[in-house]
Amino acid sequence: MGDLAELLADTVPAEHLLVGDAVNEDYAHDEALTATPVRPGAVVRPGSTEEVAAVLRVADAHGLPVTARGSGTGLSGACIPVDGGIVVSFERMNQVLEIDTDNHMAVVQPGVTLDELDQQLAPLDLVYPVFPGEYSASLGGNVNTNAGGMRAVKYGVTRHHVIGLELVLASGDVIRTGGKVVKATAGYDLTQLVLGSEGTLALVTEATLKLYPRQHHAATVLVPFATLEGVSTAVPRIVASGVGPLILEYIDLLTMAVITAQAGLDLGIPEDVKEKALAYLVVVIEGTQEDRVEADVGQVAELVSELGAEDVYVLPSHAGAQLIDAREKAFWAAKANDADDIIDVVVPRASMPEYLAAVAEVAAEHEAWVPGCGHAGDGNVHLSVFQKDPEKRDAIMRGIISAGLALGGAISGEHGLGTEKKKYFLEFEDPVKIELMRRIKAGFDPNGILNPGTVL
Amino acid sequence: MGDLAELLADTVPAEHLLVGDAVNEDYAHDEALTATPVRPGAVVRPGSTEEVAAVLRVADAHGLPVTARGSGTGLSGACIPVDGGIVVSFERMNQVLEIDTDNHMAVVQPGVTLDELDQQLAPLDLVYPVFPGEYSASLGGNVNTNAGGMRAVKYGVTRHHVIGLELVLASGDVIRTGGKVVKATAGYDLTQLVLGSEGTLALVTEATLKLYPRQHHAATVLVPFATLEGVSTAVPRIVASGVGPLILEYIDLLTMAVITAQAGLDLGIPEDVKEKALAYLVVVIEGTQEDRVEADVGQVAELVSELGAEDVYVLPSHAGAQLIDAREKAFWAAKANDADDIIDVVVPRASMPEYLAAVAEVAAEHEAWVPGCGHAGDGNVHLSVFQKDPEKRDAIMRGIISAGLALGGAISGEHGLGTEKKKYFLEFEDPVKIELMRRIKAGFDPNGILNPGTVL
Repeated sequence: MGDLAELLADTVPAEHLLVGDAVNEDYAHDEALTATPVRPGAVVRPGSTEEVAAVLRVADAHGLPVTARGSGTGLSGACIPVDGGIVVSFERMNQVLEIDTDNHMAVVQPGVTLDELDQQLAPLDLVYPVFPGEYSASLGGNVNTNAGGMRAVKYGVTRHHVIGLELVLASGDVIRTGGKVVKATAGYDLTQLVLGSEGTLALVTEATLKLYPRQHHAATVLVPFATLEGVSTAVPRIVASGVGPLILEYIDLLTMAVITAQAGLDLGIPEDVKEKALAYLVVVIEGTQEDRVEADVGQVAELVSELGAEDVYVLPSHAGAQLIDAREKAFWAAKANDADDIIDVVVPRASMPEYLAAVAEVAAEHEAWVPGCGHAGDGNVHLSVFQKDPEKRDAIMRGIISAGLALGGAISGEHGLGTEKKKYFLEFEDPVKIELMRRIKAGFDPNGILNPGTVL
Repeated sequence: MGDLAELLADTVPAEHLLVGDAVNEDYAHDEALTATPVRPGAVVRPGSTEEVAAVLRVADAHGLPVTARGSGTGLSGACIPVDGGIVVSFERMNQVLEIDTDNHMAVVQPGVTLDELDQQLAPLDLVYPVFPGEYSASLGGNVNTNAGGMRAVKYGVTRHHVIGLELVLASGDVIRTGGKVVKATAGYDLTQLVLGSEGTLALVTEATLKLYPRQHHAATVLVPFATLEGVSTAVPRIVASGVGPLILEYIDLLTMAVITAQAGLDLGIPEDVKEKALAYLVVVIEGTQEDRVEADVGQVAELVSELGAEDVYVLPSHAGAQLIDAREKAFWAAKANDADDIIDVVVPRASMPEYLAAVAEVAAEHEAWVPGCGHAGDGNVHLSVFQKDPEKRDAIMRGIISAGLALGGAISGEHGLGTEKKKYFLEFEDPVKIELMRRIKAGFDPNGILNPGTVL
C-alpha cells in the first residue's frame, strides 16, 4: 500500500489519492447480492482526463490492476476491485459539459448521474431516454453495462444513444471515438465495442449522448391475465398495432404482491380479479398530444380485451407513475425480502412463456422460489432466486441460464457479466468467440490491467 | 490460376468455381466512380455456410486474399478483389430463411436483396426499414457497409436493426453472434464490431434483422428556401416538434434540377419561387392513421412558413413518391452527368450550413462543380465532384474531408471507406485508433486474407 501511494503520488492531488484506512468500505462492493467485498489498495478520484491518463500510465508500467467505478449501483460485481488494486472513482468527473439543443445531444463526464442529467434536460423539453430504474446510476456505468430498462421497448438501450466517447487506453493514450454524428462507416466502430465492455477495454472519460423531444402525455394500462401465455400473446399484437408503447412489462403474481406492498400501493383491483390473475401486463403509452395518447390507450384496451384479459384498468396518472416506480424498485424489494441472487436472462420475446415454464420446472426441482417480472417487449426476464444453499442455487442458476440459451437467448440483457455471472459465460459460451474476445482484450490492454477478473 | 482451381476444387460444386475466361467482368468492380476494375483469380459461388468455410480454410492455409461480394452496388470499391485473389460471391445464398411474425424478425442469407425481402414482408404488413436507395443491394452488403439511407432519421441505420449474425472466420470456424434478442450485455458485441467492417473481419453468412409494423399513410412536404441556412434552421425545429419525420432531406438547386430532369418530373413549382430557391427541404411524414399524418403535415407546414420558407407544397402522394424516387437516383443522375467522384461526409446536423459553405469555398478554389443533396436530419451530405484533373480532384477531396473532420464529422456516413476512400482515412485518422483497429483485424484474421487493401 505504501508503494501504491508512492507510485500514484503525482497522478492526482494528494487529497484525492486514498490508501489504507482512508478507503471507505463503499469502494469494496456494488449491489450484486452474491459478491464478496474486496478492498482496493488505493482509490484515486481524478478530476480530469489527464489525471486518468496519468494513473493508467503508472498502472500499466507496473502491471497494477485498475477498476473503474461510477455510482457503484451495478448488479453483477463489475466494479469490485482486485485485492490491492486501484479503483478509479469518477465521482469528481461529474459535469454535464454541454447540452446541444440544435443537434439534440449532450456531452457528459462519466460521473454524472441519470438524475442530474434529467434535471438539466427537463427545462429544455429534452430527454435522454434510457431509464434503467436506478437514477443514481452514473452515465459511465450505464455505458459500460449497456444499461437498458423499461423504456427500451420504445427507445432501445444505451448502445443506441451513445454516439461518441473519449477513452483513456491502458497505455494512457487518449482517443475520441464517434462524435456528434448519428452515423458513420469509417473503420471499426470502437464506440460500440467499448459499450457494454464493463471497464475491461478502456476507461470512459466522456460520452456524447443523443437526446429526444420530451413527450408530456402518458397513460398506464394495467391488464391482469389468468396465464403468462396471455401476456405473451398480447405483446406482439400490441407491437404490431403500431401504437409504439413506451413500456411493455410483465409482473408475476408474487412480484406484484411484493412490490405493491413495499410501495404501500393499492391499485384498486377487485379481489375476484386478483385471485384469477397469475400475471400482469403493464402498458404505458406516451405522446406529444393528449388525444392521441387517449385514442391509443383505447386501442390497447380493446385489443387486450379481445385477447382474453381478465380485466383492463386505465390507471389515473398518479397511480400509473406509482406502479412504474414500484416496478423500478423490484430489485430493492427482492433484496429487502432477502433474495439470494438475481439474474436477467434475455430470450426472444415470443419464447417468454416457454422460458418461464422451464424456469418454474428448475425452481420446483431445486425447492426454490423464483419470482420475476421483466421487459416483456424485449424478452428480458428479471428473476430473483430464493435458495440459501449455495450448491442448489448454483444448480438453479445453471438451469435458468441454459434454458434461456437453449431458446436462443443470452445470460444477461442489461446487468452484465461482471465478476458474478462470468463463470457461467465462460462455461456456456462458444470457446471460439471467447478466444476472439480475448484477442480484442489483448489488443486494447496487452498487460491486462483493466478490470481483470471481469467478463473474461 | 490453374493452381487456384486445383486448390479450391473440393470447396464448391465445379460449376460454381469460375476461373480464367469464365470470370465475368462484373466481378471486377462495384459502382465506385474512381476505382480501376481488378480481375480476380477465381470466383466461388458457395451454396452454404459449410462451402464458405471450406473456401476460407483453403485460402487461410495458402494465404490467398478473399473478397466477399453481394450485389456489387457499393460506392467505394469494398468488393473489388485483389489481383489474382478469390471472390466469394453470395448470389446463390439468397434465401429469406425465416420471417418470424411473433418476434418481428427475419433471418436472411447475405445474397437476399432489399427488394426481395420487401416483397416478402409487404403482405405481412411488416417492413425492414433501411432503404439505402438501391433496392438491388444485398443484405450482406448492407451489413458490411452499415447502410443508411433517407429513412435513417426515423429508424437509424443497419447497425440498429441487425441483431444477430452467422459468421465464417478466416480460419473457417463458424460462429453465431447475437440472435433473436433485442439486447444483451454478455461479452463484447461482435455483431456490432462486424457491422460496417467491409468484409475485413469475417464473412457474413446469415443475418437476423428486426422488423417493424408497416405504416400505410405518408405525405410529402416540399419546402423551397432562399438559403441553405433556412433548411438547416428548420431541421432541428421539426425534430423538436415531436412529429418524428420519416425523411428529412435537403436538395440543392443544381441537384434538384438534375434529378427532376432525369426523372421527367414536374413538381408544379412556379418559376418565381424556383428562381429564389437555392435549397429544398423534403419532409415525409408516415403513420398508421391518415388523420394524424395530415395533422402532422399541417404542423410542419406552419412551422416552416414561420421559419422563412419561400413556399410550402404538400405533394399529392404520387408526386411525393416520384420525388423520393428521383432523389434516390441522385447517384445515377450524377453518374449520367459524368461526375468524377462522390463522397458522403457526415457532420453534426447543425453544422451543415457551415460545412457546405466550406465545401463551396473548396470547389471555387479548385474550379470544380460540387453539387449535393443529403440526409439533413442526420448531417450526412452527399456530394458529387466534377473535376477531371486527378490532382485538382484529390485536392478537392482532401479539402472536403478535412472541412468535415474539423467540424467533428467523419469521412463517410454510409458508403464506407472501401479501397477508394481508405487513403484519406489513413491520412486523417488518429494513428492510435488505426493501430487499435489493426490489432482487432489481426485478432480476427491473423494471416490478413480478408479483403486486404480495404479499410486498413
